[in-house]
Amino acid sequence: MLEGKNIAIIGLGLMGGALAMGLRRQEPAMIGAYDLDGEVLERALEAGVIDRGENDPEGAADLLGTADLVVFCLYPRQTVAFFDEHMANFKSGSVITDITGVKGVLVDRVLPNLRGDLDFIMGHPMAGSEKEGFGGATADIFVDHNYILVPTPQNKPENIAWLKTVIRGLGFNNIVETSPEGHDSKIAFTSQLCHVIACALIDCKEDRHISDFEGGSFCDLTRIAMINAPMWSELFVTNKAPLLEQIDSFEQSLKAMRQLIEASDEAGLQTMMQSVRTKRVIMEVDRQNKTRQSRQASKD
Amino acid sequence: MLEGKNIAIIGLGLMGGALAMGLRRQEPAMIGAYDLDGEVLERALEAGVIDRGENDPEGAADLLGTADLVVFCLYPRQTVAFFDEHMANFKSGSVITDITGVKGVLVDRVLPNLRGDLDFIMGHPMAGSEKEGFGGATADIFVDHNYILVPTPQNKPENIAWLKTVIRGLGFNNIVETSPEGHDSKIAFTSQLCHVIACALIDCKEDRHISDFEGGSFCDLTRIAMINAPMWSELFVTNKAPLLEQIDSFEQSLKAMRQLIEASDEAGLQTMMQSVRTKRVIMEVDRQNKTRQSRQASKD
Repeated sequence: MLEGKNIAIIGLGLMGGALAMGLRRQEPAMIGAYDLDGEVLERALEAGVIDRGENDPEGAADLLGTADLVVFCLYPRQTVAFFDEHMANFKSGSVITDITGVKGVLVDRVLPNLRGDLDFIMGHPMAGSEKEGFGGATADIFVDHNYILVPTPQNKPENIAWLKTVIRGLGFNNIVETSPEGHDSKIAFTSQLCHVIACALIDCKEDRHISDFEGGSFCDLTRIAMINAPMWSELFVTNKAPLLEQIDSFEQSLKAMRQLIEASDEAGLQTMMQSVRTKRVIMEVDRQNKTRQSRQASKD
Repeated sequence: MLEGKNIAIIGLGLMGGALAMGLRRQEPAMIGAYDLDGEVLERALEAGVIDRGENDPEGAADLLGTADLVVFCLYPRQTVAFFDEHMANFKSGSVITDITGVKGVLVDRVLPNLRGDLDFIMGHPMAGSEKEGFGGATADIFVDHNYILVPTPQNKPENIAWLKTVIRGLGFNNIVETSPEGHDSKIAFTSQLCHVIACALIDCKEDRHISDFEGGSFCDLTRIAMINAPMWSELFVTNKAPLLEQIDSFEQSLKAMRQLIEASDEAGLQTMMQSVRTKRVIMEVDRQNKTRQSRQASKD
């Protein structure tokens, strides 16, 4: 899908590295990366993950001038700053995409200044790892995961279609489209709220040996508390309004359960948890169907 | 470890079934089970998981009269009721243990009436599955998990030591001892609070297709929301005071994070999350060390 295409990855961390590895399998003409960390670029060059590494503004400008596909793998504010600095340097007609966890800030700060000859299709691969940086990168994290696309009316349909084939080629089995507001609200729930909960759960306990008393669920709930603190602080604050809304809605449900427990209302608890179980089982069936369908499709 | 011993499993659900399967490998003379569900007993007999099945009070009494080790795999109130009904029927000198998720109720309602010639060593295997009933049973769930023992001053040291070798033989890699109060408080945190949170997280969202927008953490946090509603309602209510305490402490941490987010206090969030990360990484290292040591020990 990428024959003859030049690719630029902006930010070669965990996700940038994993994307470079995955995109390589689609045999592009060249993969270049921009990153401030020269050592990471050297390791990536040696490992054949990238063909070209740039770590200064001139290099970045030159790389952008050759790239047919540019993938932003930076934090939200870095993404805005890079666009501000390099808007003049993109190759005319290039397709740009990103993996930023919050879209409102890009809609406000990037789209209004976007050159008319560029096609910026916002996206969000729902895959990751508690590992950080290029050293933790592997393309395996994409397999059977969701990918959210956040297209605007300005995006060209043929570029969206092409990007989708590239995304499927990475192993993602489910591509959904939504609006920037829809993305930020849903992500506040499925991703950010979960990280807030995991952190609060670790924060509230001072017992060094508490893991002696756990049976799997505590570990599952708190794995993501091995958190990249700078990145998630920025994501939480950049997506403040939707996130606060989701925290409040979760707190309501938590309070309702607390009341049932305090009242020893077992019948009420059973009714509530039976409905929760049904909802969660339906989600699981959905998920497994998607995985099976995508495995079938890749066999056909 | 079980040569020549007769075993009685009281309640052949997920855990009772898994324990029967695991104990079989230690070659006891006989494994019998009591369960109200005759069909389950038949399936277990056919599969060779048990040698004898009883589903009425007389059969239970007879089974108890031959059993050297009795393992209770019932809900808390059923456990109390079975002890009440069958206290006269246990074989003299037998070792009794249980897997009940709450110990306070057993301390209050079982221990005061326990015959002096019986040794009831309370326990709690920290393993399970979102599957329910005998059909979901497999001994694999025990491997590398924690086992909590809650011995009393009345328990004989040689019986505790023997029970520990049986537990290690099942695959558990870490046996910890604590008091009934310690157990109920720690379990309220590592297990019950996690189930409350998972349920509240599913409860607070009405979006049928929300799993399209998740990347793993939401699934990890809510897998246990495919919950056995009757069992967990009883566990929550039976352990009300410690559970409410843990919910309140979690809510405090959640509120603190919410305030930092609302104030856009990124520095505060980073400090808090950095400390959370450190705590959680130490837990992970602890866990991996335990698993490695136990694998090494089983090789030696």
